[in-house]
Amino acid sequence: MTTAHMKFDQTSDKIADRVRNLRSSAVRDLFAAAVRPDIISLSGGMPDVSLLPQRAIQKAVHAAITDERAVALQYGSTNGRLETRQALCDIMRDIGVRVKPEEMLLTSGAQQALNLLGETFLDKGDIVLVEGPTYLTALSAFNAYEPEIHSVPFDDEGMRMDLLEEELKRIGKGNKRLKMLYTIPNFQNPGGVTMTGERRKRLIELSHEYDFMIIEDDPYGRLRYEGGHMVPLKAQDDRVIYLGTISKIFAPGLRIGWICAPVDVLARISLVKQGADLCGSTFDQVVVEHYFTDTPWQRTLQKFIKTYGERRDAMLAALEEYFPPEASWTHPEGGFFLWVTLPKYVDTGSMLADALEAGVTFCPGDSFYVDGVTGRNCMRLNFSYETPENITEAIRRLAKVIEERLELYRAFIDAGAIKVPEE
Amino acid sequence: MTTAHMKFDQTSDKIADRVRNLRSSAVRDLFAAAVRPDIISLSGGMPDVSLLPQRAIQKAVHAAITDERAVALQYGSTNGRLETRQALCDIMRDIGVRVKPEEMLLTSGAQQALNLLGETFLDKGDIVLVEGPTYLTALSAFNAYEPEIHSVPFDDEGMRMDLLEEELKRIGKGNKRLKMLYTIPNFQNPGGVTMTGERRKRLIELSHEYDFMIIEDDPYGRLRYEGGHMVPLKAQDDRVIYLGTISKIFAPGLRIGWICAPVDVLARISLVKQGADLCGSTFDQVVVEHYFTDTPWQRTLQKFIKTYGERRDAMLAALEEYFPPEASWTHPEGGFFLWVTLPKYVDTGSMLADALEAGVTFCPGDSFYVDGVTGRNCMRLNFSYETPENITEAIRRLAKVIEERLELYRAFIDAGAIKVPEE
Repeated sequence: MTTAHMKFDQTSDKIADRVRNLRSSAVRDLFAAAVRPDIISLSGGMPDVSLLPQRAIQKAVHAAITDERAVALQYGSTNGRLETRQALCDIMRDIGVRVKPEEMLLTSGAQQALNLLGETFLDKGDIVLVEGPTYLTALSAFNAYEPEIHSVPFDDEGMRMDLLEEELKRIGKGNKRLKMLYTIPNFQNPGGVTMTGERRKRLIELSHEYDFMIIEDDPYGRLRYEGGHMVPLKAQDDRVIYLGTISKIFAPGLRIGWICAPVDVLARISLVKQGADLCGSTFDQVVVEHYFTDTPWQRTLQKFIKTYGERRDAMLAALEEYFPPEASWTHPEGGFFLWVTLPKYVDTGSMLADALEAGVTFCPGDSFYVDGVTGRNCMRLNFSYETPENITEAIRRLAKVIEERLELYRAFIDAGAIKVPEE
Repeated sequence: MTTAHMKFDQTSDKIADRVRNLRSSAVRDLFAAAVRPDIISLSGGMPDVSLLPQRAIQKAVHAAITDERAVALQYGSTNGRLETRQALCDIMRDIGVRVKPEEMLLTSGAQQALNLLGETFLDKGDIVLVEGPTYLTALSAFNAYEPEIHSVPFDDEGMRMDLLEEELKRIGKGNKRLKMLYTIPNFQNPGGVTMTGERRKRLIELSHEYDFMIIEDDPYGRLRYEGGHMVPLKAQDDRVIYLGTISKIFAPGLRIGWICAPVDVLARISLVKQGADLCGSTFDQVVVEHYFTDTPWQRTLQKFIKTYGERRDAMLAALEEYFPPEASWTHPEGGFFLWVTLPKYVDTGSMLADALEAGVTFCPGDSFYVDGVTGRNCMRLNFSYETPENITEAIRRLAKVIEERLELYRAFIDAGAIKVPEE
């Protein structure tokens, strides 16, 4: 009796307000398309796991299926296995952050951390500050709790503190609705820019002055290809909530991320996590613990750094060679991405089909903004996954697509059909 | 400058309304206590993973670190790996449910499924019907979205359809706030009771008449120690949302659960899941897929059934032998738990400390009710984890604690300090 049409109606009738307007993202749809073998993908954000040594994997997994088997196959604690947290605290020390296992909670990737933070802290209408553009799936995680998201632009030195301060003045001191600021200070996604030491210091000052929590998301911090290590915000103020993940320094197929926060904050998050998933994968936790204690993971990390650095160089060189003079881009010192800006009248989203046909994918810039409009003339390019040869070829293909589009626009401009604003 | 006290104040100031009243559960606190080696735990809900054959584990894991390595270590799709879904669809056929991989979405344990269903379908004030008592962490998952939860009592034949119908009449036909009914029809947690075929049929009729979604949570369905298989609700109506998990038939340390639902429902849930965790552990998915295709898992399942059946028998025999005449309990045909009812004037929560001292843990009944009051004279006992000898000893210890408490109550009753209500 029930037809497919009736079924769909039934669901529409039942869904919560918060999901009524959720749409599949262009990025994800492309991600799906990018499995076609002839396409070179600059749209994803995948590490190259083929760089991981087979022996290290075997060693780490071996522990989980032999000595630690009874633990690895059983339910674990909501906050994550103590020994795994200890191993991750140990590796945090290299980057200047000293935390104890009781100040750390393991999550199913850093993505779950974002979701838990939203659920723990955000009521409808609360204010969250983010970089604009920012990591689009952080926005999805927060949006489930219906906050107001305010974007603050960045430049080559990271989030602009002058614009943040203006925004904070608008919000007002003592505004209870202001809950948190979310930042990716190192090699930002999608911008590729890094927050300077001076701005980090200023951000912490402002967080005290205006009383908001700083969420420091640091998936790429260890993947630096030039310049010196920047001290994390967390190392400068232990009120900061720091998010880490093994996804880019080991393997995202094992879903292990972590939250470092003061114990009272973690106690709240832990209660929320009980309802979210009871506990994470203990099997994955045991494997991760042994990877970071029993294998030469620092050597593997150097291999990642060398490889990704070469790929970044290949992309920068190809952009220089092939991209039109109207385009500009960021020069990331590390991480996975760079951000290309085209003239304001260009809509990169409308170029996706042509790009796919030409055999290359990218992420249109508007996916990284809350309003879905800003950033339409921009694109995010990933350089971590493809070989330098493929990257060069992909940029050549993409340049051709852009050039054709610009030709068209130029004709419109010449005919007076498009007004070119002063930039 | 910041003292621990100030930090705590800061957090209280920031947390969302939905978590303001969350409390750590007595069950979980006990769970933590139960790691003391002298204590026999009847409070947990753990399978005995020591029953898993080492060779099967090795075989399943081997696939993940060799041939399937590139997949197992990399990001996966939000809905879960197709091949894993296919393997799980195949094993669903044994219990009478025919679904295709596109009608299945993998979750991080069935707990995440509950959370995703809440996020996708529940607005504040929406109505969720549940068995009373029910699985307490399902309530936590739903409570994040602030619904009204209405409990419907069960008897030995499962949820009482007459009382459900009365409740539905109170709610009213066409009430848009009524979203879903959550049930564990097989060997209910905590009740141990199973819904009869007749009541299943009636439940489906009522779901159409009053237009609500049925969520059928079935973690224990295959663990039947007597009687014949009951046809799942999902097999009788494909509008039903079915939740499965490998936690009780393989290993909960690998967090793999699944939702079977019509494709339009899954499409909504999938969008929500992107923000929740991007994707689950592909490593765990590959291991599970190979466990259910390359190992004699059915033989291992028979070993689970034989072992847990003996443990249930040991518990029933010990209850018969040691428990006072004032106590009654359910006779589960499968699953992990049974439910003990003591006289109305007994508060089992207040016996926890004595029980711990006597070397045994249990779950007080009020943890399984929304109001935190009903069920105070009840307790849930788990029989899956301890050996028959331990179970017998634990029941002997627990009986002594109860007997001492009843002695005390009897003295109060004799002195007229407690009124015994007519039951």
